Amino acid sequence: MVWQIVALVSGVISVAVAVYLFNWVLKQPNDSEVMARYSEAIQEGATAYLKRLYTALGALAAVMTVVILFTLGWQKAIAYIVGSVCSGLAGYAGMYVATRANARVAFAARSGLKRAFPVGFFAGGVMGLSVVGLALIGMSVFYMIFGDPEVILGFSFGATLVALLAKAGGGIYTKTADIAADLVGKVEFGLAEDDPRNPAVIADNVGDNVGDVAGTGADMFDSYIASVAAAMILGNVLYSEEYVVLPLLLSAAGILASLLGILFVRTGESNDPGRALNTGTVVTTVVFGLLTLAVAFLLGIDRPWGVVLPTIAGLLAGVVIGFTSDFFTDIDRKSVQNTARAARTGPALVILDGFSYGLLSIVPSIIGICVAMLAAWFLAERFGLDGTYGVSVAAVGMLAITGMIISSDAYGPIVDNAKGCAVAGGEGEEAIRVCDRLDAAGNTAKAIAKGFAVGDAALTVLVLFSAYSETVGVEVLDLRNPAVVVGVLIGAMMPPLFSALLMLSVGRNAFLMVEEIRRQFREIPGLLEGKVSPDSSRCVDIATRGALKELALPGVLSLATPLAVGFFLGKYALGGFLAGSIVTGIVFAILMANAGGLWDNAKKFIEAGAYGGIGSDAHKAAVVGDTVGDPFKDTAGPSLNTLIIAMSLAATVFGPIIARIALFEL
Amino acid sequence: MVWQIVALVSGVISVAVAVYLFNWVLKQPNDSEVMARYSEAIQEGATAYLKRLYTALGALAAVMTVVILFTLGWQKAIAYIVGSVCSGLAGYAGMYVATRANARVAFAARSGLKRAFPVGFFAGGVMGLSVVGLALIGMSVFYMIFGDPEVILGFSFGATLVALLAKAGGGIYTKTADIAADLVGKVEFGLAEDDPRNPAVIADNVGDNVGDVAGTGADMFDSYIASVAAAMILGNVLYSEEYVVLPLLLSAAGILASLLGILFVRTGESNDPGRALNTGTVVTTVVFGLLTLAVAFLLGIDRPWGVVLPTIAGLLAGVVIGFTSDFFTDIDRKSVQNTARAARTGPALVILDGFSYGLLSIVPSIIGICVAMLAAWFLAERFGLDGTYGVSVAAVGMLAITGMIISSDAYGPIVDNAKGCAVAGGEGEEAIRVCDRLDAAGNTAKAIAKGFAVGDAALTVLVLFSAYSETVGVEVLDLRNPAVVVGVLIGAMMPPLFSALLMLSVGRNAFLMVEEIRRQFREIPGLLEGKVSPDSSRCVDIATRGALKELALPGVLSLATPLAVGFFLGKYALGGFLAGSIVTGIVFAILMANAGGLWDNAKKFIEAGAYGGIGSDAHKAAVVGDTVGDPFKDTAGPSLNTLIIAMSLAATVFGPIIARIALFEL
Repeated sequence: MVWQIVALVSGVISVAVAVYLFNWVLKQPNDSEVMARYSEAIQEGATAYLKRLYTALGALAAVMTVVILFTLGWQKAIAYIVGSVCSGLAGYAGMYVATRANARVAFAARSGLKRAFPVGFFAGGVMGLSVVGLALIGMSVFYMIFGDPEVILGFSFGATLVALLAKAGGGIYTKTADIAADLVGKVEFGLAEDDPRNPAVIADNVGDNVGDVAGTGADMFDSYIASVAAAMILGNVLYSEEYVVLPLLLSAAGILASLLGILFVRTGESNDPGRALNTGTVVTTVVFGLLTLAVAFLLGIDRPWGVVLPTIAGLLAGVVIGFTSDFFTDIDRKSVQNTARAARTGPALVILDGFSYGLLSIVPSIIGICVAMLAAWFLAERFGLDGTYGVSVAAVGMLAITGMIISSDAYGPIVDNAKGCAVAGGEGEEAIRVCDRLDAAGNTAKAIAKGFAVGDAALTVLVLFSAYSETVGVEVLDLRNPAVVVGVLIGAMMPPLFSALLMLSVGRNAFLMVEEIRRQFREIPGLLEGKVSPDSSRCVDIATRGALKELALPGVLSLATPLAVGFFLGKYALGGFLAGSIVTGIVFAILMANAGGLWDNAKKFIEAGAYGGIGSDAHKAAVVGDTVGDPFKDTAGPSLNTLIIAMSLAATVFGPIIARIALFEL
Repeated sequence: MVWQIVALVSGVISVAVAVYLFNWVLKQPNDSEVMARYSEAIQEGATAYLKRLYTALGALAAVMTVVILFTLGWQKAIAYIVGSVCSGLAGYAGMYVATRANARVAFAARSGLKRAFPVGFFAGGVMGLSVVGLALIGMSVFYMIFGDPEVILGFSFGATLVALLAKAGGGIYTKTADIAADLVGKVEFGLAEDDPRNPAVIADNVGDNVGDVAGTGADMFDSYIASVAAAMILGNVLYSEEYVVLPLLLSAAGILASLLGILFVRTGESNDPGRALNTGTVVTTVVFGLLTLAVAFLLGIDRPWGVVLPTIAGLLAGVVIGFTSDFFTDIDRKSVQNTARAARTGPALVILDGFSYGLLSIVPSIIGICVAMLAAWFLAERFGLDGTYGVSVAAVGMLAITGMIISSDAYGPIVDNAKGCAVAGGEGEEAIRVCDRLDAAGNTAKAIAKGFAVGDAALTVLVLFSAYSETVGVEVLDLRNPAVVVGVLIGAMMPPLFSALLMLSVGRNAFLMVEEIRRQFREIPGLLEGKVSPDSSRCVDIATRGALKELALPGVLSLATPLAVGFFLGKYALGGFLAGSIVTGIVFAILMANAGGLWDNAKKFIEAGAYGGIGSDAHKAAVVGDTVGDPFKDTAGPSLNTLIIAMSLAATVFGPIIARIALFEL
């Protein structure tokens, strides 16, 4: 019990520091009234959207709670509700502080980089620390009360369903506004990014907060819990209690390491803030490695090296995948520069080259995942532990430093918004230059976070697959069994289907918003001359309604399809379904994230002066690539991680019931 | 033995009819010297390319023959060589008659549709009938001599390796020229399709012949053989000789049905030639169904319905998948029209919408494949046969009417070329209108052929997977075994990797050709005014060299990777590799074929007058979509069918050796 209390206390410390940082950020001054008004418009839009989203999710959670109550018992039902609420809470807190930090960062930028950077980074830290703190508190409490890791699966399931819809909805919202703002504002009227005359600018900034801050926070929250829950279940099935508590304590160690790492993130006036973020990540990694050793030996694990080495292998693999994930998307690489060069022939070859490099980029990530998995497996087996358990603690190790990763990641959209505030507030050139430097530093952090997210989702679902096998009793899959093959094929079809529905939603909503922006420029006299303000609320409304309406179908499909496959064709078909969905889920997630990042940077490469620079035909072609890449990298791609985790959890949670009531068991 | 002779004789009849049609087509007149010269330029380019391709493939075949000779014995080595030669021969014959038919069709178009249609269709028939005839002769002879279906696997492997490289090389060639011709000719200089002033027009027409005729012929040839060989192996493992001979006789029945069907393809002056093609397909289908019954009962199969019903299920599934495969690509559908509407906002939403509908289109095809498989399985089991054998005869049934399918498919590029001849030869408006009508009819046939190709490749590889399991002794796959998971992930990465390499090749070569075309228009005085001819041979040379050079890496990877996985991680990992590659192979093949077809038709929809018609901004945006779609649908997509069959065959052929020498068997 003492160890559970250690885990709980670590979670509480994390939340306490988050609250402290929250107050600190809100105390930072902002004396510019224009920026304050701009920021308030974003706050209102984001709050209104999240309220409506959470109302809808509340209804879904109510239905699911009843279902779980009658099928799986009250313990899991309670865990499910609490998981849903915590996931929503973490996202809301992140959004709340992010939308209040933006103008404060911009105001601090007047006094230089050294003053402005911590405002942005600590605001991100609020998100990072509340996510991991709430997760660890939830898991420790449920394990203390019920002593059964299966209940934590319910907690994880609640968090994941909220994450899936928050991520997907936020992704639709943010790209609807971004694309529409670019298509009309930049391309048709030649306005700069964040030009306050553009009616979609507020919606675009709201989108950054509900998509990149709240959505990504929810996404990491759910992977974090799922990986710990899966490791605890395997520990429970295979070994004694230390092995069940170990994943909780590794998470606690990760939180303490992240807190230390955050302390190290400082920058001077002339330093690169990106390096400060990287230093924080490195410090966190080293501290976590040492703490892992301490945990394994203090806990009295009988085969300590069998867990320490896989954990460190997972952690290192995460860092390596993270730092190399920009191999194909880095602006200094051949892939980006070739794509930019192709822009001289127009948009078609930009699309073809970027898409092809995106396909190529699957190779190093898959190899990284395979190496991490094989290393964790062999190291565990070498020291007498089950290889699958080794892979499960590797996944926990990879995600243990999530607190630090999210803090750096959430920093990105916050300083991006800050620049919007500075432009809207007519800040001086120097302040805007500071904001630009802050913004540039966010990109590496974002790439690293994406690498972590993909690598970890892959390991986690592989472990969840084992948890499913153990729970339901599916030893092996016979690929000559037609039910298994049908399951595999239907599972493989889900990630493309889900992506298609999200991207079509973006296209449809962006089309509506484009028409609205054109209408405003046509019908509001003086708008283009900057004499009157645009009617931003109409665009915010289109994005909000659109995102919520379009969520229903993909949400229902992702939950109903695995259950239907299991119900009609049995547990082996459901196992095949999971395997198929994991395979295409990983492949499409990497493809979309990297192709999108590459197109973004190819555009930036031209904007930096290559092939005629801004305004040239090559630039216009590269903008097309960037626009296509936006929903790839910010809507569909990152939702797929959550999708495969959600489907794996649904299968594992409901698996035992499905196995009992299946119509045709083949 | 009498049954083997029946099969052999059917193959000989098929080839004989092909030779008859060949002579008939060459006897058709062409008195236009301009068209004859134009056609000759295409013949020269295509012949030069195929000669260089076959020289390279000959070297590869020599090496492989030695490898097979020393590892698998002389029987398989001989079968391998003959398979390679037959595959090359079928492609060459198709190209030969196609490049000679084009001007003859254009000339006949002066006298109207009724005269011109059979020239084009019978030229396609030469290809269709020689493919199936050569395949059946080869398989019957090897089975008569050696009595061992495993030898036929060697024949199939030879055919597939040639097909893989012919298809991929032809795909790179044709789209290099097509994209370059469009980007400079249409977009920059406003020239029409096939304008003889465009230096890339000849290369573009050569590409149609080496890509769509020779490449597709080789592709269908290899699927056809692989499905029969896999069924024969299963019949051999599970049952007595009738079940081994049955697939050969079903193919013979398919050939006779195709011959009858081809007789029914006739059109009057005012009829739609597309309907004539469809009538031929329907007649072939019905006749084949009846012949299947006859074969099963005459052969004295002890459970006739257990093979007849799955065969017919496969056949019907093929027809249904074929006729519905244009659900998402049909010009009258919402998907195409929404994509065209999105063109009003520029190219970005065209790409996003088309890609998303391409992702959606995976759903009906996968469901079609699943239904076909489950139906075949249950019908076979219901009548006391092994379900996998049922699936294997369903695959044979689906491909049995290949003769008719290829004939209609090869018709497409022939009449497309005919239009080029007519434009170049300055034919009258009426003749060009006839060519346009002929051309439009080819599109449905092409869509049907693609549906068949995907559906069949899916069933065939599933059966090959069973053949691999039986041959190597991999009963089931344990997805908690890390070697299996690594195999699955590496297998899943192969189709995207292969696609990426092919499409990057297209992009690179097209870029070179674009520069060459621009140079010619800049440096050759009088070219744009039509006073002098362009230097077409430079473009032909760029396409030829480029395609061959770029083939090496994907060719080596597709052969070496499965063998390396098997060698390092053992037979279970190799089984996982096949499963992973099949899953993403099917998904990407459908995605690319359908997204490409959809963009093509969205452009045509606008060209027919919607949203401003030709020359409008919407049209320019739609052309971008079409250009992106070209290598999707004609280079990468169709090569994936062959890739997964090639990798499955490599694994099955070398599996027993790999199982013996694997380094780490997990």
